Amino acid sequence: MDLSQYFPIWEKLTAAQRGALRGAATLRSAARGTVLHNGSADCVGLFVVRAGQLRAFILSDEGKEITIYRLFERDICLFSASCILSDIQFDVTIEVEKDAEFWVIPADTYRQLMEASAPVANYTNQIMAARFSEVMWLIEQVMWKSFDKRLAAFLLDESALEQSDTLRITHERVAAHMGTAREVVTRMLRYFQSEGLVRLSRGGITLADADRLRALQAG
Amino acid sequence: MDLSQYFPIWEKLTAAQRGALRGAATLRSAARGTVLHNGSADCVGLFVVRAGQLRAFILSDEGKEITIYRLFERDICLFSASCILSDIQFDVTIEVEKDAEFWVIPADTYRQLMEASAPVANYTNQIMAARFSEVMWLIEQVMWKSFDKRLAAFLLDESALEQSDTLRITHERVAAHMGTAREVVTRMLRYFQSEGLVRLSRGGITLADADRLRALQAG
Repeated sequence: MDLSQYFPIWEKLTAAQRGALRGAATLRSAARGTVLHNGSADCVGLFVVRAGQLRAFILSDEGKEITIYRLFERDICLFSASCILSDIQFDVTIEVEKDAEFWVIPADTYRQLMEASAPVANYTNQIMAARFSEVMWLIEQVMWKSFDKRLAAFLLDESALEQSDTLRITHERVAAHMGTAREVVTRMLRYFQSEGLVRLSRGGITLADADRLRALQAG
Repeated sequence: MDLSQYFPIWEKLTAAQRGALRGAATLRSAARGTVLHNGSADCVGLFVVRAGQLRAFILSDEGKEITIYRLFERDICLFSASCILSDIQFDVTIEVEKDAEFWVIPADTYRQLMEASAPVANYTNQIMAARFSEVMWLIEQVMWKSFDKRLAAFLLDESALEQSDTLRITHERVAAHMGTAREVVTRMLRYFQSEGLVRLSRGGITLADADRLRALQAG
């Protein structure tokens, strides 16, 4: 599998642009825990994830972290090349969360591509819009943080009731219990799953880390 | 003054594109308090602010608001045309905060322009990156919210000490008092000013709303 299979708008590039991208991109691999990009200190380039999982987070002066999003196979990491976009004025750290293999597209190569090609520029826009949406979702959760706590409380209560870590319950039913929409429940459960708090399966929710759910509930 | 003076990459457009933009854009005015755009329900188009001030905020189910940014003269509001960017999955409300005059560029016109023109697509990217940065700043404040509270407390203490609402103190000195960088202080003071909590002048900070500063401090 080569880069062309992983770069979504490959067919909109000219032959010369494809050649430039193939020539400049390098395939790298990195083990869990590796920090790939550290704030504005470096401008490594874009990462195109071939396998594994990356985590993007911000860091407070006191060393506290907030995960802002995760990157999976086929995802493209823009903020490891934030020097391309001069208006990006925040620092994101990118860390390997599961052993990963990814292409690195040098920042200069991508910048040139973006300046010349409307499809590439618009695609870059799409990536940023998707990340922006994730961050807005996070800010809403944080500001009006009742729902994550309430959901954690609900899962713990149900688990105690059923005397089981695995709940046979649909997202629809959880939503009905909590007086909200199914989409809201599904989204929060997926977030819980990405945080390792639960494991989702067809028709079931398994509490993977009851201690952290309790901490969240108490939060 | 016409649109060409307010649209920053006008000189990078072709004659046909300029014509299309001029032909489609309409100049509107609206009084303080008018809601110009309400979540994903509408896709009015982009606003290019000629005069006045707009406020973008998000709204919780319970009706709580968070201001995410403000738009001043020459700013361009992208999220009133979020239908252009399918990956934008959050709802922003745009309200007139000071009587405003602005051009509306219909969403379709802008989309066509963006698809055809790399400069327009890259410019759109820049606008989004700038807004993204403002939101990231806000999330950091909210998550690690010590600093806004600490600064409010500092200003109230100083004001009590000086027995005056106006403090003759530089941002540099405030930063030294609080063990942080001048930039951090300046940014937060500007945020306070945009929220109507203080008024900034050369060498001085006036407490414009001590009650709300007290509420913030206690928060």
